[in-house]
Amino acid sequence: MNTFGTLFTLTSFGESHGAAIGGVVDGMPAGITVDMDFVRSEMQRRRPGQSAVTTGRKEADEVEFLSGIFEGKTTGTPIGFIIRNTNQHSGDYDNLREVLRPSHADYTYWQKYGVRDHRGGGRSSARETAVRCVAGALAKLALHELGITIQAYTSQVGHIALENDYTKYDLSLTESNIVRCPDAEKAREMEELILKVKSEGDTIGGIVTCVITGCPVGLGEPVFGKLHAALGSAMLSINACKGFDYGRGFDGIGERGSEQNDQFVNTENSITTATNRSGGIQGGISNGQPIYFRAAFKPVSTQLGEQTVLDIHGNPQTLQAKGRHDPCVVPRAVPIVEAMAAITVLDYYLQYKARLQ
Amino acid sequence: MNTFGTLFTLTSFGESHGAAIGGVVDGMPAGITVDMDFVRSEMQRRRPGQSAVTTGRKEADEVEFLSGIFEGKTTGTPIGFIIRNTNQHSGDYDNLREVLRPSHADYTYWQKYGVRDHRGGGRSSARETAVRCVAGALAKLALHELGITIQAYTSQVGHIALENDYTKYDLSLTESNIVRCPDAEKAREMEELILKVKSEGDTIGGIVTCVITGCPVGLGEPVFGKLHAALGSAMLSINACKGFDYGRGFDGIGERGSEQNDQFVNTENSITTATNRSGGIQGGISNGQPIYFRAAFKPVSTQLGEQTVLDIHGNPQTLQAKGRHDPCVVPRAVPIVEAMAAITVLDYYLQYKARLQ
Amino acid sequence: MNTFGTLFTLTSFGESHGAAIGGVVDGMPAGITVDMDFVRSEMQRRRPGQSAVTTGRKEADEVEFLSGIFEGKTTGTPIGFIIRNTNQHSGDYDNLREVLRPSHADYTYWQKYGVRDHRGGGRSSARETAVRCVAGALAKLALHELGITIQAYTSQVGHIALENDYTKYDLSLTESNIVRCPDAEKAREMEELILKVKSEGDTIGGIVTCVITGCPVGLGEPVFGKLHAALGSAMLSINACKGFDYGRGFDGIGERGSEQNDQFVNTENSITTATNRSGGIQGGISNGQPIYFRAAFKPVSTQLGEQTVLDIHGNPQTLQAKGRHDPCVVPRAVPIVEAMAAITVLDYYLQYKARLQ
Amino acid sequence: MNTFGTLFTLTSFGESHGAAIGGVVDGMPAGITVDMDFVRSEMQRRRPGQSAVTTGRKEADEVEFLSGIFEGKTTGTPIGFIIRNTNQHSGDYDNLREVLRPSHADYTYWQKYGVRDHRGGGRSSARETAVRCVAGALAKLALHELGITIQAYTSQVGHIALENDYTKYDLSLTESNIVRCPDAEKAREMEELILKVKSEGDTIGGIVTCVITGCPVGLGEPVFGKLHAALGSAMLSINACKGFDYGRGFDGIGERGSEQNDQFVNTENSITTATNRSGGIQGGISNGQPIYFRAAFKPVSTQLGEQTVLDIHGNPQTLQAKGRHDPCVVPRAVPIVEAMAAITVLDYYLQYKARLQ
Repeated sequence: MNTFGTLFTLTSFGESHGAAIGGVVDGMPAGITVDMDFVRSEMQRRRPGQSAVTTGRKEADEVEFLSGIFEGKTTGTPIGFIIRNTNQHSGDYDNLREVLRPSHADYTYWQKYGVRDHRGGGRSSARETAVRCVAGALAKLALHELGITIQAYTSQVGHIALENDYTKYDLSLTESNIVRCPDAEKAREMEELILKVKSEGDTIGGIVTCVITGCPVGLGEPVFGKLHAALGSAMLSINACKGFDYGRGFDGIGERGSEQNDQFVNTENSITTATNRSGGIQGGISNGQPIYFRAAFKPVSTQLGEQTVLDIHGNPQTLQAKGRHDPCVVPRAVPIVEAMAAITVLDYYLQYKARLQ
Repeated sequence: MNTFGTLFTLTSFGESHGAAIGGVVDGMPAGITVDMDFVRSEMQRRRPGQSAVTTGRKEADEVEFLSGIFEGKTTGTPIGFIIRNTNQHSGDYDNLREVLRPSHADYTYWQKYGVRDHRGGGRSSARETAVRCVAGALAKLALHELGITIQAYTSQVGHIALENDYTKYDLSLTESNIVRCPDAEKAREMEELILKVKSEGDTIGGIVTCVITGCPVGLGEPVFGKLHAALGSAMLSINACKGFDYGRGFDGIGERGSEQNDQFVNTENSITTATNRSGGIQGGISNGQPIYFRAAFKPVSTQLGEQTVLDIHGNPQTLQAKGRHDPCVVPRAVPIVEAMAAITVLDYYLQYKARLQ
Repeated sequence: MNTFGTLFTLTSFGESHGAAIGGVVDGMPAGITVDMDFVRSEMQRRRPGQSAVTTGRKEADEVEFLSGIFEGKTTGTPIGFIIRNTNQHSGDYDNLREVLRPSHADYTYWQKYGVRDHRGGGRSSARETAVRCVAGALAKLALHELGITIQAYTSQVGHIALENDYTKYDLSLTESNIVRCPDAEKAREMEELILKVKSEGDTIGGIVTCVITGCPVGLGEPVFGKLHAALGSAMLSINACKGFDYGRGFDGIGERGSEQNDQFVNTENSITTATNRSGGIQGGISNGQPIYFRAAFKPVSTQLGEQTVLDIHGNPQTLQAKGRHDPCVVPRAVPIVEAMAAITVLDYYLQYKARLQ
Repeated sequence: MNTFGTLFTLTSFGESHGAAIGGVVDGMPAGITVDMDFVRSEMQRRRPGQSAVTTGRKEADEVEFLSGIFEGKTTGTPIGFIIRNTNQHSGDYDNLREVLRPSHADYTYWQKYGVRDHRGGGRSSARETAVRCVAGALAKLALHELGITIQAYTSQVGHIALENDYTKYDLSLTESNIVRCPDAEKAREMEELILKVKSEGDTIGGIVTCVITGCPVGLGEPVFGKLHAALGSAMLSINACKGFDYGRGFDGIGERGSEQNDQFVNTENSITTATNRSGGIQGGISNGQPIYFRAAFKPVSTQLGEQTVLDIHGNPQTLQAKGRHDPCVVPRAVPIVEAMAAITVLDYYLQYKARLQ
């Protein structure tokens, strides 16, 4: 199941060390100008090797669009695109041919499909998320026409967490530091922690918070297509994501119902809510308030140094990890979270428009 | 979007105060004996009015199967069923005709569809989950043939939380107390807290933990159909669910990668993992270990007593809540979590079997 | 797969001799007044026993709506409905318990599902189409708001065929005779043929032609969701339907391309076509002209009198058919063709509306 | 909607004069050896310019596989592939920039999407079917493992039709002549007719018959996923296809039910049918007999010579067609029909396997 969405869909393909990764975006509204600089900048945000807190691995990540765009605008037909894998030295991975790396997908893929593509994770590699960033950039271009914005940021690394909710920060500062945290002081602490963990050859997890503004009232298709269920599914499909909540989420379970009520108020002859503890969604349908949610990312499993692992015959092998991994995936997850949110919201916007009048 | 699943699907219909709620289960394997006592007992677990910690509202919840079962066994054709609403005194709700209850779906449904069904929540009522319990019971009967078990329990109410993970409890004790917590001492504390909150006319949230055992290696359809993404979507579609995580989830983000590694071991000539921090899923595919996840439920919004709210014209109204609500939805959410997990796992099991040989 | 459609969907359930048949219509636009007399009249058109050319079998066919309608209008939530089977004397079918009726679905259902519901066809019975007529009536009510009309008629029975295309007939005359043919003289011939075939205990096939007017330009989702492909799939899902074509269809293959060209003309400052050989669809997308297509129905297999058949053990058995079947299904297929066309067109209309602006 | 199928899916993209066409095959069974010569030979059968009866246009049609194949075998992950368009002289089409070619998709695409890609049909070009042949070749490789064969042939061109059904011909002779007809004498007549029509600058239609053998009993998902409904939808999605029937189809409507009965016989302790008038499908489910169906193709609309047409402003323009079109698409449609049949049957085979045991 490599297709995501109902009306606006992304079909993704590609392994980390095959010829290319790529995708097909279907249901893209016609007549949207494709700002190639914007698409590239979105991919740049996800790219490995962009700073000291990410992997040192280099990927060129040049996207080539093959269809669905004519004279600079989308045509409404499917947009096929590819990103060549420039670093395909599969020989580099010969030592992994029979090795099962712990807490990776090596074992489960092998068992499910009966074959092994041992080259750097194959299909389960996070390299696949570059495809999502391309589709997300296209979705953002369409959402831009509607005044819908999507902005994510790092809200926690290890135990270093922002103390306030999104309303207290200037999110335009997010890109001003390499951990993508809008609080400069916390960003420094997070960066220090990541560098410390990196120096130990280890990894650390964290949280990305995402805020969506400008949605009309009415996005969401109850009861199984609740907007937050779709966002949750989108986030949980990202590599290393282990949890999702929205509104007061896990933090709100110790509160009383009376503390979480969002009273309606009549402002300028329009009904809105005085507070937004619900997270912009009620009964699975957007209520016009900002939508906010969190995605939790684990410390990834790749470890530096030598470890004893099993091979596919069940025999112990010594694995010397090469260590071109991210000590913390969270900074690079920020644009991926935004991309999947954009894809989801555009899909739901189109469903919302599917009415008689 | 009132259909859930790909090969094993539930299509749900019905409002809390219409003639009936019901559903259609499609893709049910043929030849399964339908144990009606089991189906009824599963519905009984969800039924309102079952204990002091749930709503006092009474619902008969008699299910009538209309098709797909012949001489006691499933036939492979769709199973239609209905549950009559015996309590349809819509007159009781006349005071709500134009009122927008805070943090309910009243406003968003009205705006999305342009019509109001003001009777007790209409489609957004949790009464709809009775339908899921019927489908879940059918799914469990099929999973039983495969040796797959699904067991959920209350792991937190307010700030009262179990201190250990599922491996430390005898889950067969879950049904021995009214909060459905396998730790008798904690259960008592939770019960006291709920009764206190109830006496104050307020509500409190909590967490349901769910454990799935017996899954073969290979359930899950990367990259967008990862097993945990499907489980997350299933849980988040349940009323009042605000969050989902699996494995070490949100709690694991402060840990190091080296602490989360699940080393492979060769036991009885079979490869397995020494620990299960991944939560039974790696790369989106089940690895044969128990799958465990959590679903967070908010304190629901219905409040006792008088409050000032807005009506659909934006004018203030005094709302006198009648209070037949749950002070804490978590105990009754336990069987619903199990039902949605069972539906999801059976659907993925069938997809897993869709192979050439 | 008992769900049809993408945004406007029908999920169908029920066997001919179970407790009830029924369905769930999801995606019904909100705010449509449900004219119950119209719904009943549509079901009446399909009902067995309505004339000398149909089966003498009686079915009450009373539909009960259970949800999705409030104070006479649709609410946008799923519409569940059931039709009780009043004639459930399964004892009548004991002689069929192990018998495989030739050219019926007895053998294939038994082999596929491993179980037998021998009572009158079970799920494969054409009784299921009553459910489609209910959903079709709802779809027609929505299409009526858009000025889209759907009208089918009998254009051939055996070798007696209308000589002209739909433009030459007054389709409002269709219901004025029991074979549902707008040409009174041909209708008489068809009726005579059916009665003759009936008197011989045999059956005969025929063709239903359907005309859709008022569609805007733009319905259809190439390349796999071409409007005619969806209509074809809809028709071929009807019992006994063996073929589908649209526009000049099978009859046009002997013509030259120059004979089939539909030249564009500029009429009242609007571009339209001078002729309509394409059948209202070009490149899979409606062009604003009337859409017309044909559905071919076989002579059904039930035979009067005694025949030797096999049972499930492969042994010969004497089968004495009771003969309450249609000598020609075509007159009763007319409303079913319309229903499936209406469901398809409404679904595609909603997809067509799913645009940014 | 550019994705076809449920478990085995093809997502297609590309315009005739963009950078490339291509597709993503998802759900391909793992471990299948990809015989590249076979894939190329299937594409070769569809390629323009292969004989005197097809267009003289040249397309290189070199497929490049980008993922999902490792060391010569499928891995179970999605197979992305592209076919570069070598002939992208869009300048050649400048004369078509504002012209609406009659009976083409120019007008409907323009109206639906609000933009024009005037270069040789754009997305509506039959060039897209090359993608289907690649996916069909992969499907055939999987079906080959199961002993399922798919063979199509030209059974009618204009009024020249084969007189017998498929059982009377040696289908291995199909590729021995350029019209792909297994009857050498008829093939000669068809070829003559096509050349005559071509010399007149006109086109002619015809019929492709397809035969599928080796299917197990049980493929098909009633009531809406009947096997023949899926095959019909697949065929009708092919450019220029106007009709579909199976079994006795349109030809059988003049027969009596008693003439169409397929009596069961007990052969070698296995139940089968003495005749196969049903076309290998009963109640929407394959019965183990050969499946046969027909697809009708219209004479395509491109005409040689000068004609007066409208432009997008409604003004008359003189169009001088360049004439690199097929005088009869039927010979080249043969492999496309096979490809779509293979994709459909493999998808249904996988659904058929999705059972508990």
